[in-house]
Amino acid sequence: MLKIGVIGCGAIGKEHIRRLMHLIPNAEVVACTDYFIDAAKETAAKYGIPNVYQTGEELIAASEVEAIVITSSDASHAAYVLEGVKAGKQVFCEKPLAQTAADCEAIMEEEVKQGRKLVQVGFMRRYDPGYVEIKKVIDSGELGEPLMIHACHRNVSQGEGFQTEMGITNVAIHELDICRWLLGDEYKNAQVLKVKQSARSTKGYDNPQIVLLETENGSRIDVELQVSDAYGYDIQCQVVCEKGTLNLPDPSSIIKRSNATCSTTLMTDWADRFIEAYDIELADWVTKVEQGEPAGPSSWDGYAACVAADSLNRSRGTNEFLKVEMIEKPELYK
Amino acid sequence: MLKIGVIGCGAIGKEHIRRLMHLIPNAEVVACTDYFIDAAKETAAKYGIPNVYQTGEELIAASEVEAIVITSSDASHAAYVLEGVKAGKQVFCEKPLAQTAADCEAIMEEEVKQGRKLVQVGFMRRYDPGYVEIKKVIDSGELGEPLMIHACHRNVSQGEGFQTEMGITNVAIHELDICRWLLGDEYKNAQVLKVKQSARSTKGYDNPQIVLLETENGSRIDVELQVSDAYGYDIQCQVVCEKGTLNLPDPSSIIKRSNATCSTTLMTDWADRFIEAYDIELADWVTKVEQGEPAGPSSWDGYAACVAADSLNRSRGTNEFLKVEMIEKPELYK
Amino acid sequence: MLKIGVIGCGAIGKEHIRRLMHLIPNAEVVACTDYFIDAAKETAAKYGIPNVYQTGEELIAASEVEAIVITSSDASHAAYVLEGVKAGKQVFCEKPLAQTAADCEAIMEEEVKQGRKLVQVGFMRRYDPGYVEIKKVIDSGELGEPLMIHACHRNVSQGEGFQTEMGITNVAIHELDICRWLLGDEYKNAQVLKVKQSARSTKGYDNPQIVLLETENGSRIDVELQVSDAYGYDIQCQVVCEKGTLNLPDPSSIIKRSNATCSTTLMTDWADRFIEAYDIELADWVTKVEQGEPAGPSSWDGYAACVAADSLNRSRGTNEFLKVEMIEKPELYK
Amino acid sequence: MLKIGVIGCGAIGKEHIRRLMHLIPNAEVVACTDYFIDAAKETAAKYGIPNVYQTGEELIAASEVEAIVITSSDASHAAYVLEGVKAGKQVFCEKPLAQTAADCEAIMEEEVKQGRKLVQVGFMRRYDPGYVEIKKVIDSGELGEPLMIHACHRNVSQGEGFQTEMGITNVAIHELDICRWLLGDEYKNAQVLKVKQSARSTKGYDNPQIVLLETENGSRIDVELQVSDAYGYDIQCQVVCEKGTLNLPDPSSIIKRSNATCSTTLMTDWADRFIEAYDIELADWVTKVEQGEPAGPSSWDGYAACVAADSLNRSRGTNEFLKVEMIEKPELYK
Repeated sequence: MLKIGVIGCGAIGKEHIRRLMHLIPNAEVVACTDYFIDAAKETAAKYGIPNVYQTGEELIAASEVEAIVITSSDASHAAYVLEGVKAGKQVFCEKPLAQTAADCEAIMEEEVKQGRKLVQVGFMRRYDPGYVEIKKVIDSGELGEPLMIHACHRNVSQGEGFQTEMGITNVAIHELDICRWLLGDEYKNAQVLKVKQSARSTKGYDNPQIVLLETENGSRIDVELQVSDAYGYDIQCQVVCEKGTLNLPDPSSIIKRSNATCSTTLMTDWADRFIEAYDIELADWVTKVEQGEPAGPSSWDGYAACVAADSLNRSRGTNEFLKVEMIEKPELYK
Repeated sequence: MLKIGVIGCGAIGKEHIRRLMHLIPNAEVVACTDYFIDAAKETAAKYGIPNVYQTGEELIAASEVEAIVITSSDASHAAYVLEGVKAGKQVFCEKPLAQTAADCEAIMEEEVKQGRKLVQVGFMRRYDPGYVEIKKVIDSGELGEPLMIHACHRNVSQGEGFQTEMGITNVAIHELDICRWLLGDEYKNAQVLKVKQSARSTKGYDNPQIVLLETENGSRIDVELQVSDAYGYDIQCQVVCEKGTLNLPDPSSIIKRSNATCSTTLMTDWADRFIEAYDIELADWVTKVEQGEPAGPSSWDGYAACVAADSLNRSRGTNEFLKVEMIEKPELYK
Repeated sequence: MLKIGVIGCGAIGKEHIRRLMHLIPNAEVVACTDYFIDAAKETAAKYGIPNVYQTGEELIAASEVEAIVITSSDASHAAYVLEGVKAGKQVFCEKPLAQTAADCEAIMEEEVKQGRKLVQVGFMRRYDPGYVEIKKVIDSGELGEPLMIHACHRNVSQGEGFQTEMGITNVAIHELDICRWLLGDEYKNAQVLKVKQSARSTKGYDNPQIVLLETENGSRIDVELQVSDAYGYDIQCQVVCEKGTLNLPDPSSIIKRSNATCSTTLMTDWADRFIEAYDIELADWVTKVEQGEPAGPSSWDGYAACVAADSLNRSRGTNEFLKVEMIEKPELYK
Repeated sequence: MLKIGVIGCGAIGKEHIRRLMHLIPNAEVVACTDYFIDAAKETAAKYGIPNVYQTGEELIAASEVEAIVITSSDASHAAYVLEGVKAGKQVFCEKPLAQTAADCEAIMEEEVKQGRKLVQVGFMRRYDPGYVEIKKVIDSGELGEPLMIHACHRNVSQGEGFQTEMGITNVAIHELDICRWLLGDEYKNAQVLKVKQSARSTKGYDNPQIVLLETENGSRIDVELQVSDAYGYDIQCQVVCEKGTLNLPDPSSIIKRSNATCSTTLMTDWADRFIEAYDIELADWVTKVEQGEPAGPSSWDGYAACVAADSLNRSRGTNEFLKVEMIEKPELYK
């Protein structure tokens, strides 16, 4: 039974607490905290969590807390992760791991110093059955080497305060991780392209954008990015290999024939799309941590996505590919 | 160059004349006639047909006419076919070949007497690329023996004067032929089932109906029959074999994603659905006749469909399977 | 927290215990038993179940047991259910509820006497997202009245001792329940048809078979039943309404293009197909029971499926529809 | 009846002669020629073409020739087209119109001088029912403005002597035309990207490549180009509009379920894919020319594709977008 403390009791925090308490038999949430302490108290009451702490630091230090889940605001992630790692505790951190490459590097240094992996980043798509099936076929070699990925990320809306750069750091970040993972490769060059803007997008940020990536092995990735105003929440991914292609399927939906039309319903809410992946992700983290070490996306993966996102955002308007400059990969993550 | 006379210049007659004149290089329409002689004259003027005859009999007898296409009213088919066969001329007759089994038998007797096949019946589905592909896979043995067929015939409307029995003799008749052909088998038992009626069907005839057939080899066929008021013109056919199934595809149509829906457009007009099959059918008839003998559905096939239709119509309301009683198959058709 | 005793610790029993213990927060398994008492002891040890009883009767009588899950052998269901109901406890019973209509009637009589529903039958398909979506569209009236259902149940293998009749009572039983539920209707007539047998089926039982049903409202249902030797585990269901049709989708699977072929993978194991439905089913039962009364398939539903299955099995070889004779529906189940 | 002379009696030339003679009622081939005069003579004999000329120039000048079809080698197109236009005759020229922008400009100048359109270029995709349906929906405005196109051109092999640049000028040229047409827009920037090469491609030319285009209105196009060694001949096109997307469908093919797999067959031969489009294209050209002026792709369209192809080929290896520099569009083509 893994005893977990949760930092951040907002929407995703509460979702993860529910998962840990109700769906994952070998996990138990023993402590929580939130910037708004009343949110933490309410959540604790609702789920029967015994300890509420005033700060993340206190929670990290608490002796009954064996592992930490970080679902606080993006800007606060890196410091909590670092603190957790320093305390020698396993940390599951929602994406992004940090907002700068330097912060990611600091986390990795600490892990390297301790000689073990203590961090998993919340790139849940790696647990989605569709992506997992694609990865399995790629790795089987049945279709030869992967050469290209064509991806689309189409969403219906974003919250207040959304900005162009967040299209990369908060939305396309999932493609930045999953494409590296599918290809087993690192990024070399990155570019964001300006596209004719949708007249429906009137909120002051670029929409759509196109993301182009080149990997060390020369594979190419294109990602169409509609952060809002799309016809639905639709995630498309096609991997082109030497001998064939693999497509992520649409979520299952009944087929209707009426009015001379054959149709299926598409999703509109991102939360519905990867709900199963979230469940599997947390269960896997708990189990692997109990066995010694997490097996999911590491702080290196969080770093790689962060560096690529940074290159992409810097490339905007330059009309050229920018190098994705990464430090040498520490042995720990190989 | 096959010199053809056409009896019947209505809609389907004109369509076939257009095909023979414009699409089929080795055919020429040299004569036509119609119950309404002005229709024949107009058609002759439009397509440059040199001879117009007052009656089908005159056309059949005309020395310049080598082969005959019959597209006159259903009730008149059998007599024209018999006359054409007696004249030793090749005859292409739109379905149905005749309205009674006895009339079909008379035609076959005449062919047998002459010792050669002189009749092709207009079951155009045998030339549809989808059905042809299904037939090829069945005959390859790749999937083992065929065991069952599930079929649907859904249509949007019928002309004035339509009656319940015509659901079998004019609509399901296509399934009666194509299923025999796909299975390479004859019918043994037949039954029409009453179904809850659509409130949209208020024109005095049964709709929908369900057709059940059993073949000599024990294969089973079920056909859902919506003669009118369906959501589109939709023809479905699934053959279930020992090792797998084969489905007729929907006609190709662009895929639209909008309003949280993924959709394609279905057809509503039957004439669009099998247009390619009609073209191939007539071209094949002309070519095979020029080579000596037609290779398409014979008068035996017209007879088999007629007998099955008759059994089905007699079974209505009896709540049991009726025998499909056929004469022994003449050597000529084996 | 619902305190549950489980009778039967075989494969499905253990699966349900796992669900109740790990996935369903408001349930707790407090007792178990099995015909093989060692199986019960092992399961208790594995899941930390405090009490093991020698017999189902003892478990039912135990004061700490508030509700009972029955996953013992088919033949033992009815007696345990009746005992549970007499004890005034809520019972979840895997299908079938009983092996005779008389046994089902005895259970209903006891419920009626007590004036409340105490039984839910394990027809998990009613919780499958695909069937649920179909039901929702039917009930919305958007497509008018349902008129027909075309269904297929294709399976790859059956256990030792399988017999022809079990094709109905153990396999098609799911269609018998789900079709009634989708249509909101009862069966009037039933018939099993002999079909050409698959050469792959050499184990002494009929395969395939075709099930035909007519409802009180005149709707028609056809079910193709391949209990074994099919190309995969494939469940198909199409509801034909006045204005359109609804199809159960295939489970989601990646799309591969290679070797001039576009393909997806189909399932072969039934346990994978409805795993989500089982989870939702038991969670719903626990929640509704805690709120007062189960909302899933009742003992009336178990009875209706049992009577229809019986008519079907009696009809085999008669070549006619048999009446499905049911008692008048008690007020309790309306 | 349009009297046509055909220059070039190779594979595509013979195909077009067959179409003009057999499928298109209002056309007649009255003359032909070929660089290998025996090929011309054979073709004339086969199709009953009365006149064979030693040279294209003689054929163009022949008084019985009203219109010209050019299906000779690519390098010879421009001169014949110019000659035909100077002779005041209608010209249908297979793609490419010319090999340099200057040659295209000379042709346009001559047309402008004569004040009428005399040229149609063989971009047959504009007549493919799928593309036509997409164009119709775009132009209807139902989905708002088009913003992006994602396209794939995958082929299985190329003839001897194929070179990297021909991937653009002979293969992607179809996408260069169809995307302009779908969007109703001109190209502004163009770039070819190097991609990880397929180990199956060992014939000395780049494969795959990625084509990127930006239009005057800011729309973006990406085309994956596999000129050979792909799993089949597969043409994909998705237009992304403000309110939804439109996809070209796969050609219709039967659906097979066997061995736990659901599959359809993909094409391998390009000639099968657009056979219907070729038929419609030539029929439309003949009809429109008889009515006064061709309505299909003009010499401006041939020029635009040529200029874009040139920019793409010059961009190879530069890692940047090159301007697509076009002359001002003459009034005649607006």
